[in-house]
Amino acid sequence: MTFSPLHDPGWRGFASDNYAGVHPEVLAAIAAANGGHQPAYGQDAYTARLQQVIAEQFGEHAEVYPVFNGTGANVVGLTSVLPRWGAVVTSATAHIHTDEAGAPERMTGLKLLTVATPDGKLTPELVAREAWGWGDEHRAQPLAVSITQTTELGTVYTPAEVRALADHAHEHGMAVHMDGSRLWNAAAALGVPFREFTSDAGVDVLSLGGTKNGLLGAEAVVILDPGRASGLTYLRKLTMQLSSKMRFASAQLLALFDDGLGVRSAAHANAMAARLRSALDTRIADGALPRLAFTQRTEANAIFATLPVDVADRIRQRVRFYDWDRSRGEVRWMTAWDTTADDVDAFVAVIAEEICGKDALA
Amino acid sequence: MTFSPLHDPGWRGFASDNYAGVHPEVLAAIAAANGGHQPAYGQDAYTARLQQVIAEQFGEHAEVYPVFNGTGANVVGLTSVLPRWGAVVTSATAHIHTDEAGAPERMTGLKLLTVATPDGKLTPELVAREAWGWGDEHRAQPLAVSITQTTELGTVYTPAEVRALADHAHEHGMAVHMDGSRLWNAAAALGVPFREFTSDAGVDVLSLGGTKNGLLGAEAVVILDPGRASGLTYLRKLTMQLSSKMRFASAQLLALFDDGLGVRSAAHANAMAARLRSALDTRIADGALPRLAFTQRTEANAIFATLPVDVADRIRQRVRFYDWDRSRGEVRWMTAWDTTADDVDAFVAVIAEEICGKDALA
Amino acid sequence: MTFSPLHDPGWRGFASDNYAGVHPEVLAAIAAANGGHQPAYGQDAYTARLQQVIAEQFGEHAEVYPVFNGTGANVVGLTSVLPRWGAVVTSATAHIHTDEAGAPERMTGLKLLTVATPDGKLTPELVAREAWGWGDEHRAQPLAVSITQTTELGTVYTPAEVRALADHAHEHGMAVHMDGSRLWNAAAALGVPFREFTSDAGVDVLSLGGTKNGLLGAEAVVILDPGRASGLTYLRKLTMQLSSKMRFASAQLLALFDDGLGVRSAAHANAMAARLRSALDTRIADGALPRLAFTQRTEANAIFATLPVDVADRIRQRVRFYDWDRSRGEVRWMTAWDTTADDVDAFVAVIAEEICGKDALA
Amino acid sequence: MTFSPLHDPGWRGFASDNYAGVHPEVLAAIAAANGGHQPAYGQDAYTARLQQVIAEQFGEHAEVYPVFNGTGANVVGLTSVLPRWGAVVTSATAHIHTDEAGAPERMTGLKLLTVATPDGKLTPELVAREAWGWGDEHRAQPLAVSITQTTELGTVYTPAEVRALADHAHEHGMAVHMDGSRLWNAAAALGVPFREFTSDAGVDVLSLGGTKNGLLGAEAVVILDPGRASGLTYLRKLTMQLSSKMRFASAQLLALFDDGLGVRSAAHANAMAARLRSALDTRIADGALPRLAFTQRTEANAIFATLPVDVADRIRQRVRFYDWDRSRGEVRWMTAWDTTADDVDAFVAVIAEEICGKDALA
Repeated sequence: MTFSPLHDPGWRGFASDNYAGVHPEVLAAIAAANGGHQPAYGQDAYTARLQQVIAEQFGEHAEVYPVFNGTGANVVGLTSVLPRWGAVVTSATAHIHTDEAGAPERMTGLKLLTVATPDGKLTPELVAREAWGWGDEHRAQPLAVSITQTTELGTVYTPAEVRALADHAHEHGMAVHMDGSRLWNAAAALGVPFREFTSDAGVDVLSLGGTKNGLLGAEAVVILDPGRASGLTYLRKLTMQLSSKMRFASAQLLALFDDGLGVRSAAHANAMAARLRSALDTRIADGALPRLAFTQRTEANAIFATLPVDVADRIRQRVRFYDWDRSRGEVRWMTAWDTTADDVDAFVAVIAEEICGKDALA
Repeated sequence: MTFSPLHDPGWRGFASDNYAGVHPEVLAAIAAANGGHQPAYGQDAYTARLQQVIAEQFGEHAEVYPVFNGTGANVVGLTSVLPRWGAVVTSATAHIHTDEAGAPERMTGLKLLTVATPDGKLTPELVAREAWGWGDEHRAQPLAVSITQTTELGTVYTPAEVRALADHAHEHGMAVHMDGSRLWNAAAALGVPFREFTSDAGVDVLSLGGTKNGLLGAEAVVILDPGRASGLTYLRKLTMQLSSKMRFASAQLLALFDDGLGVRSAAHANAMAARLRSALDTRIADGALPRLAFTQRTEANAIFATLPVDVADRIRQRVRFYDWDRSRGEVRWMTAWDTTADDVDAFVAVIAEEICGKDALA
Repeated sequence: MTFSPLHDPGWRGFASDNYAGVHPEVLAAIAAANGGHQPAYGQDAYTARLQQVIAEQFGEHAEVYPVFNGTGANVVGLTSVLPRWGAVVTSATAHIHTDEAGAPERMTGLKLLTVATPDGKLTPELVAREAWGWGDEHRAQPLAVSITQTTELGTVYTPAEVRALADHAHEHGMAVHMDGSRLWNAAAALGVPFREFTSDAGVDVLSLGGTKNGLLGAEAVVILDPGRASGLTYLRKLTMQLSSKMRFASAQLLALFDDGLGVRSAAHANAMAARLRSALDTRIADGALPRLAFTQRTEANAIFATLPVDVADRIRQRVRFYDWDRSRGEVRWMTAWDTTADDVDAFVAVIAEEICGKDALA
Repeated sequence: MTFSPLHDPGWRGFASDNYAGVHPEVLAAIAAANGGHQPAYGQDAYTARLQQVIAEQFGEHAEVYPVFNGTGANVVGLTSVLPRWGAVVTSATAHIHTDEAGAPERMTGLKLLTVATPDGKLTPELVAREAWGWGDEHRAQPLAVSITQTTELGTVYTPAEVRALADHAHEHGMAVHMDGSRLWNAAAALGVPFREFTSDAGVDVLSLGGTKNGLLGAEAVVILDPGRASGLTYLRKLTMQLSSKMRFASAQLLALFDDGLGVRSAAHANAMAARLRSALDTRIADGALPRLAFTQRTEANAIFATLPVDVADRIRQRVRFYDWDRSRGEVRWMTAWDTTADDVDAFVAVIAEEICGKDALA
């Protein structure tokens, strides 16, 4: 039988890269992995191949463990490098702190020590505000640093910045975790191979995203320094992150590495954000958008801006997006692998109309 | 670009219904749900439609919460009906006890109180062995009973058996959870609507399977008595079971309810198990398979048998399956939605050859 | 046989009220409760009497649950008013965040949302910085506020300040927890009955201290609004905070309520801190202690001061105390129930000598 | 001021050694440790001395960590020898399974794998029923064995029996934990030094009891093989088992090792149980107590017997004790350090009266 869509496939917005669907090449990869039987729980040919690709991309010692989602990847990865008494120094805007409903604390008892940052990026100096007290049994022991690449504020760590953080962390016996939910956007933005800003820069364990970059649903924990992590297979299972038909998760992730699909898709999303930012910047410079301002650099596929709340709400009625901090009129506009130049241009027009009034544009 | 399979799509065995791939109709349903943007985290049209279908199938008050896997469904569902001091009475062969790596205990602190059963099925009398001590602060409070349908031993609870368990549980203030990882096989075996052996029989919360019945990967918690459960959306998120692109999980589950696909697929798997059992029974009756015996009734898609370990190992070299209890030579043979009659007949031949020797068959 | 001390009973310092021993009246109370058998786990006459006293002191609905220590009281109390998805808004200097090794997160999965404060005291405005996002499944739900009385910085909430916090919290469906590790010092400082700044001011659950005020070791969870809490007996047991010979914990707590011992002891400790602060203030005003400054008001039994680190270290070699924030030369000086006026005067002299040099004093 | 008892100090029963009070020598030890200040959290002279004594008693590598109660000792000790994916093989009657409200599971996620035993004692064969599946990510990994000495059924492991269990466990990479809540009674029963049936017999980590043997309240984790355990100070704190005024816990434990107090007290309790058992055995042999039978050997201070429920209830109205398994009329009679010969003789008379009727005795 056939199925018809229950939704309008022509509708797109700037709410989230999670709103986008599955890239056709990924669907093709899933179909290719289908057919016949394959051993469950990762003993299949696709997961074996993924392990090879990850080693090529991240270094020969790298190990990959596909999981279901980003929160799962973060919790499994961080737990694998921490004893039961460990704490994680992270940004106050980190997804693990703000958007995971307490999963790190509740599932494996990870204590988070948060530091405010101007742009979502930690520095050794910022980390040092909470990285102290080793050996004091009263203090949750700061034994990991978690950074997000690209950050929740759309900024990107350079390889040198990651290296500085990793050196500082390692000097103090701390492991380095990178939440790479949007790692592909970072790779596209930096224009360097993954390993340059991950393994080679001192990252020990990585949450490798995929879902936000055109997959149906697959992420992975990548252990870059196996000497710092332990128990991955057990931890993945006991955190309920072990997929039975793992061949399909691995096939999706493989597709991103195939023929440059992942970087290509992310680069496109980044370019769409740049197009949006640029068009608005031009109009702002022209004085045409008096009440619009940007709060962060646009380095990947997210734009943060302030504008009057009522204007934002009128825009939102026409094109979907989220508030970031409604108390100060801050909004987030995200692009995805499937955002088109027409989408961007139309959105710019809507923004302009609602900020200036239609008459003003006439 | 195109992808080629990395595996032999013609290979199948009797190891697990998790070894099977995705039913073509399910792939079609995924493709139909693709295209454009849809709100993430369950605010999409497919999840809304799934909620309608579940209410039709399980009763108007039923609520559905798609999750990633069976362990996730079990842990979220059980946790939603238990206080922090609750314990779960379950069979000693229950998946939650034997095959979830301690996830129930480790993730949300569920204490399991296990009871040995002859065939994987609990009865009120068996439950009563551990269901006592309410009000005693030293004892983990038995406040839920968890049964598996079909059981881990391939047997099936009748609606009346479920009803008796539920009445007993409710009399003592306990909630009833059903692990329906293979609920479709039970529905096919019983030949009755779902609600007859779930909601109408007193089940309060259900883990609705899908992955083992031809999905890529989707299960759901179904709350049948919302008065007994709380916090589902929060619990699903904090246990790392919330899918961002939920439209695809919901589309998969919807496909099973569409045009009878789920029951049809499960009935086929059951029929293949019956064919295998029947063929072997006939040969046993003829004295042709002297060292083979069955240890459980074959009521769904699993067969449990004993045979000499060396014979089992020789068979396994030709057709894949798992030992169940190697210490007593017990094996498990499972059929799936894609098992063919030819697969069964060929497997019977292999079994016969290896038990009797090829000469004996000549 | 007889036992001889292994330590010098004449040695005292300003390190912590936990360094002080047991008040002789408390030892007498323990001895009086000894002899014969008493039912274990709280079914004894002393715990029954304690329940009566607590109801007299905190209101007829108040319920008392003795536990082992302050961390235990905090975790049991907070957990009793929170669902599994709850979060606690608290000060960044709160003991539950800084000095409990992550027990709240690790033992019962409590997520803490911390707010910086100038003096350890929250206000509704400060609470509001983290109290938002109810209904958003991604955000740990802020459902409790925890304040410390007296604060970790030695300051004291007035009844009106507690009331304002409680009103704000209750308006938003949040429970109010008070960490009363030094509640006796607060009562002595405020000069009002307990209920005026606890039950009557809207506090729902209280950690009632004792150990820091002359007990051998006993604290209690006091539920002030039983409608907001549940499962206390179970939670106390499963968090390993249930004492078998509870008669002795209850007898200790009873002793504090007997003949004003608790308030009397705390008032003395407060007076000794005031004496120390006053003596130093006088000298500072005279220009005699040029490098000493105070960082907090001295409202109870703790003094926070800054002075050069090398000077602090020299003083410490003579009289024991702790650094509070070594990076900025901040120290904490605490008095206890057994601090004497002579102890204070001698400490002032030592401080003066080491700040000014002995010559300067000549 | 003075305190008067709120209870009848002359009342004793056979309910529990937890009903007994504090031995006068222990109170003296507490008093001797009082006076002046001592560093908190174990940096005191008494804890230092305790460490020396433990090394003398259990071997030079032994480390002691005082905690609050037996459940705390068990959870801290077991957690210190297990990774997050570990499971504990233990007896179905083990206190950690039946009487700790799920603390092991809920606090640190310990999965328990229980085995039925006839007398509370495990053997390598019994352990082997659950000790399997290493390397299988689906199975909670059996990495510790926990035995109780004396057992919950009043029986005692010989050094050779412990050795056999330890050898078996170590061969399979499992650590050995001994719940020594009544270790003193075992030492008294065996008549050998502690180390003969602990460290020298292969036990890796021990819960050293004290409260049930005349202390006010103190237990300890004793690490016998530091190579197998880690994180003790952190684990004790984060499980809320760190005492601030630890000098008093340590002083209590020291008292038990002083002048043989601990073994002396336990030997007395054992002797009283033997006197009770012997008196009843004699009467049974005489046919004078027709409906009384014993279900376990009496090797320490507990007696397990069956008698008609109505008779048990009549006896209980006169002398307090607990049912063990009411469904089969089994009761438990416990003696303590303060049980007197007169108590025993009077109890025998009561039992006889209620079994036979007063006329029958005339």
